[in-house]
Amino acid sequence: MKQNYKLILDRILEEIQPFLEKGEVANYIPALANVDKKQFAMSVHTVDGFSYSVGDYEKPFSIQSISKVFTLTLAMKKFGDEIWKRVKREPSGTAFNSLVQLEYENGIPRNPFINAGAIVITDSIFSNVKDTTNNIVQFVRNLVNNQNIQINFETSKSEQEYGHRNMALASLMKSFNNLNNNINQVLEVYFNQCSIEMNCKNLSKSFLYLANKGVNPLTNEQVITIRQTKRINALMLTCGLYDSVGDFAYRVGLPGKSGVGGGIVAVIPGTLSVAVWSPGLNKSGNSFAGTKALELFTTYGCNSIF
Amino acid sequence: MKQNYKLILDRILEEIQPFLEKGEVANYIPALANVDKKQFAMSVHTVDGFSYSVGDYEKPFSIQSISKVFTLTLAMKKFGDEIWKRVKREPSGTAFNSLVQLEYENGIPRNPFINAGAIVITDSIFSNVKDTTNNIVQFVRNLVNNQNIQINFETSKSEQEYGHRNMALASLMKSFNNLNNNINQVLEVYFNQCSIEMNCKNLSKSFLYLANKGVNPLTNEQVITIRQTKRINALMLTCGLYDSVGDFAYRVGLPGKSGVGGGIVAVIPGTLSVAVWSPGLNKSGNSFAGTKALELFTTYGCNSIF
Amino acid sequence: MKQNYKLILDRILEEIQPFLEKGEVANYIPALANVDKKQFAMSVHTVDGFSYSVGDYEKPFSIQSISKVFTLTLAMKKFGDEIWKRVKREPSGTAFNSLVQLEYENGIPRNPFINAGAIVITDSIFSNVKDTTNNIVQFVRNLVNNQNIQINFETSKSEQEYGHRNMALASLMKSFNNLNNNINQVLEVYFNQCSIEMNCKNLSKSFLYLANKGVNPLTNEQVITIRQTKRINALMLTCGLYDSVGDFAYRVGLPGKSGVGGGIVAVIPGTLSVAVWSPGLNKSGNSFAGTKALELFTTYGCNSIF
Amino acid sequence: MKQNYKLILDRILEEIQPFLEKGEVANYIPALANVDKKQFAMSVHTVDGFSYSVGDYEKPFSIQSISKVFTLTLAMKKFGDEIWKRVKREPSGTAFNSLVQLEYENGIPRNPFINAGAIVITDSIFSNVKDTTNNIVQFVRNLVNNQNIQINFETSKSEQEYGHRNMALASLMKSFNNLNNNINQVLEVYFNQCSIEMNCKNLSKSFLYLANKGVNPLTNEQVITIRQTKRINALMLTCGLYDSVGDFAYRVGLPGKSGVGGGIVAVIPGTLSVAVWSPGLNKSGNSFAGTKALELFTTYGCNSIF
Repeated sequence: MKQNYKLILDRILEEIQPFLEKGEVANYIPALANVDKKQFAMSVHTVDGFSYSVGDYEKPFSIQSISKVFTLTLAMKKFGDEIWKRVKREPSGTAFNSLVQLEYENGIPRNPFINAGAIVITDSIFSNVKDTTNNIVQFVRNLVNNQNIQINFETSKSEQEYGHRNMALASLMKSFNNLNNNINQVLEVYFNQCSIEMNCKNLSKSFLYLANKGVNPLTNEQVITIRQTKRINALMLTCGLYDSVGDFAYRVGLPGKSGVGGGIVAVIPGTLSVAVWSPGLNKSGNSFAGTKALELFTTYGCNSIF
Repeated sequence: MKQNYKLILDRILEEIQPFLEKGEVANYIPALANVDKKQFAMSVHTVDGFSYSVGDYEKPFSIQSISKVFTLTLAMKKFGDEIWKRVKREPSGTAFNSLVQLEYENGIPRNPFINAGAIVITDSIFSNVKDTTNNIVQFVRNLVNNQNIQINFETSKSEQEYGHRNMALASLMKSFNNLNNNINQVLEVYFNQCSIEMNCKNLSKSFLYLANKGVNPLTNEQVITIRQTKRINALMLTCGLYDSVGDFAYRVGLPGKSGVGGGIVAVIPGTLSVAVWSPGLNKSGNSFAGTKALELFTTYGCNSIF
Repeated sequence: MKQNYKLILDRILEEIQPFLEKGEVANYIPALANVDKKQFAMSVHTVDGFSYSVGDYEKPFSIQSISKVFTLTLAMKKFGDEIWKRVKREPSGTAFNSLVQLEYENGIPRNPFINAGAIVITDSIFSNVKDTTNNIVQFVRNLVNNQNIQINFETSKSEQEYGHRNMALASLMKSFNNLNNNINQVLEVYFNQCSIEMNCKNLSKSFLYLANKGVNPLTNEQVITIRQTKRINALMLTCGLYDSVGDFAYRVGLPGKSGVGGGIVAVIPGTLSVAVWSPGLNKSGNSFAGTKALELFTTYGCNSIF
Repeated sequence: MKQNYKLILDRILEEIQPFLEKGEVANYIPALANVDKKQFAMSVHTVDGFSYSVGDYEKPFSIQSISKVFTLTLAMKKFGDEIWKRVKREPSGTAFNSLVQLEYENGIPRNPFINAGAIVITDSIFSNVKDTTNNIVQFVRNLVNNQNIQINFETSKSEQEYGHRNMALASLMKSFNNLNNNINQVLEVYFNQCSIEMNCKNLSKSFLYLANKGVNPLTNEQVITIRQTKRINALMLTCGLYDSVGDFAYRVGLPGKSGVGGGIVAVIPGTLSVAVWSPGLNKSGNSFAGTKALELFTTYGCNSIF
């Protein structure tokens, strides 16, 4: 079976080549716009210790929205079900940065994986954790069991400079009393967490706890409870892929989370974590080749969760 | 393990009693408004032949929106991926009968489980299958391996009489050229399929093919392919519970479909089909006690798909 | 001064020629799509009996939405302020046939000049006036003092055949209990009133009561009170030009009403009624050359109401 | 006739008393929330020099949104039709501070009298006029011919502190490249202009140029052209009263502008300017008693523009 993953990833690396031309890199900040879109990496880690990676799997990239899973995990660990008073857990049906639904629903974001929801989660951590940025990075380092994971502060500054839409979301929530701290300070942490850089191999490792009932198999630490693990996976499946969760569930069939840096990471509960990276994005903001690679992965392995 | 299901269902039947007071029966037509809301039934069927039921499991009720899974299955079987030209497969983020998104998105419904999407699916079947109503019922009878399943035509007439919202949806789609047949004829079939009556035991049986890779274990018939089966399950998980798919995935963690008659049916792929019925609904239009019962079921059995 | 109107209209007829190429005729029904868009007419009638017309002012055309002013007048005459329980009097900010706002605002249309609002007005007349279609036409004939005004029933049938959007609006209102009669019967009357044909000269005459404190100077009949007259004029100014009322008020500065048949009619309270006709429409559905002609009219005459 | 205005205002002062109980003062900032709502003033100034005032007409209050007319006038004077590239002139159909339409329409505000539109206008002045705040106040002083008009900077600071919704609007426009300067600097000027204080008598004087073809009769200065004057009046009539322009046009029938400080000022072109003040607001944010007083004014004087 594990030999299979090698064969499957090698085959995908070959078949994915024509897809690397397609898609467009995120262009709203220079740090993302200047990335070569022909790059591709894929990495799988099973809960019992096997791993295999192909392509540019040691090249670090910006994890962007994938960081929302880490902050949600932190917040659920610290505050439990309290967080659901300030954010819902339903798919949004609109773009990840839309203000429309947020206004209609009085400043309560639809889920923790759209920008507004993630900002609320970061705000709740900011209220309770000093030196918030460093604590978030350290949490990620522990997940990967690697102290070299860093924030790219140049990217973070750039995000801040062009982050008017996020400023609008935060201000609107503040006007509805759903942001407790200083807007600029919360956004600074938010842009920092989005600017964490990882390579594809480490990204795959970082989600192992979600494939392993909340226990990080690299350190044997119980990150969150089994119940919380299932719930984060359920949230990823229903809300993790921007405005194409339905399409991703239909084609790939795994809980996962994507970022505009071109990374996507998914898990087969009980079995493995799999990460892909390719910077060219489709219209929904998900990696074009990455989505295709994951579709091939579950097709060849016949192993969606459905 | 199978002994477990008996214990679990017996325990749920006991614990669910206080929840039967809660919720409100659907009141838009007399046929639904006059049902006693204190009724409850639950039935489980494993793919290898075990079954157990508790409560009012022989009492027939109106399956309503659950019929959308059957017509989608029929349409996928007949037309394959053609159907996705006329309906998307993303969660809607709005009420099941809303016209807002449908207008913004030029008459293309968000998914086949909101009313507009289901009407499009019925329209496509109507174009290709003569005696459409009877064919749909016969398809359901074969799934359950029971020729006594009937439509309640009194309910159907009542639906038609009060079905102005569905008429609005169909007319709007017609104005965008996304309805090919006569509006009244398509709606008649649609109201007929919603008015199919089943008891909880048969409802559980009817979804066994979705738990068994597309094969109906009662008849050994290959209803649809394994790939299509996984896709219908993915669609149910992301779009099957009206505007509370996220909450249902979070609390129950199974692909399922609900109806305003108070029925909900879900599957654990590879393992079993489980149906509940209790007519009192929560604000989202899902059975109040039914949702709770399924939450207890996956909690006690520790068996969500995540 | 009256000599001025002759000079002004003659000058406009000359200067408007290059604008007749622009715009597109309404193409949703054959009866409107087949009209030659190079036609133009303009006609002015003062309250004290002077009149002058240029261009194709004897050619009849479909008055379409202009009929909404006549039915509103009839309804205000018959039911007074009662009508405002079922329709508001605010600009809509959205397209004339949009369902979005109607759904958000529970089936109460924004004003009597968008389709939904006009259908509600027709419904209220239908409830109280037998032989409704004939009564509406007769009311218009009396305004013009001309018994030859007719409905083009071919146009009306065509409207009905392609009127799915209006069917959607009516059905949505019915679902909110804001339509009291049979949908098809009300829409038949509605399509009939829209299919009344007049030439530009008669159209100008028909609005004289709105320029003359509610009294028709052709017959000396008090059509409505002075107070109601002012109010209809206010409604036309704020809601009479589809989604470009602001632009029309800015450029022309007169209360008026347009139709997709290419007619526009406006009044200078206390002074005159002026009608234009040219079938080519701008993006908002108003006559392209007609709007320009009215802009020239108030510019050359220095006589907007502001 | 002028004697009439005295009689009418005296009568209104008497009849308005029961209405002063109704309505609620704006409560989003202390500076407005602490005002006694039982106050009332009304002041009329004719273009030929007659004036009469009743009630608390010497008590200064915050002009708030009425300032939008002054900045629009300044911008039209300086930039002419250039400004319409960045803001439309259509009624919005939604609340004055809504982000929904602004997002759907890519950051182009509906008109210069909703908050987003007024911020764009202030941004354009900020780009071209140094010491912007002082220049705006000085412009208003010249209109009233009174150098004592001041900004209440305490109100302004308070607005800034609670101005998250306006921050959201400005940020959203910035994300669409429709704000050229630093958000905080533009908002500071905007909050300053809203915090200008005037008494009712001066407010009435300040609009005389709009009743007098663009010429300020107090100074004989040509503020703007006659054409621009008509256009500002047209804009006030279609967009000047938040989300109740239609109702105001219907009941009062004059171009006017309101503010949440409880002031409303309107003009009869060619004749007079009339201001009212009473701090209790109706649901639309317009002075409750003020609207009623203006309705009585045009009813008793029979002098709407329609």
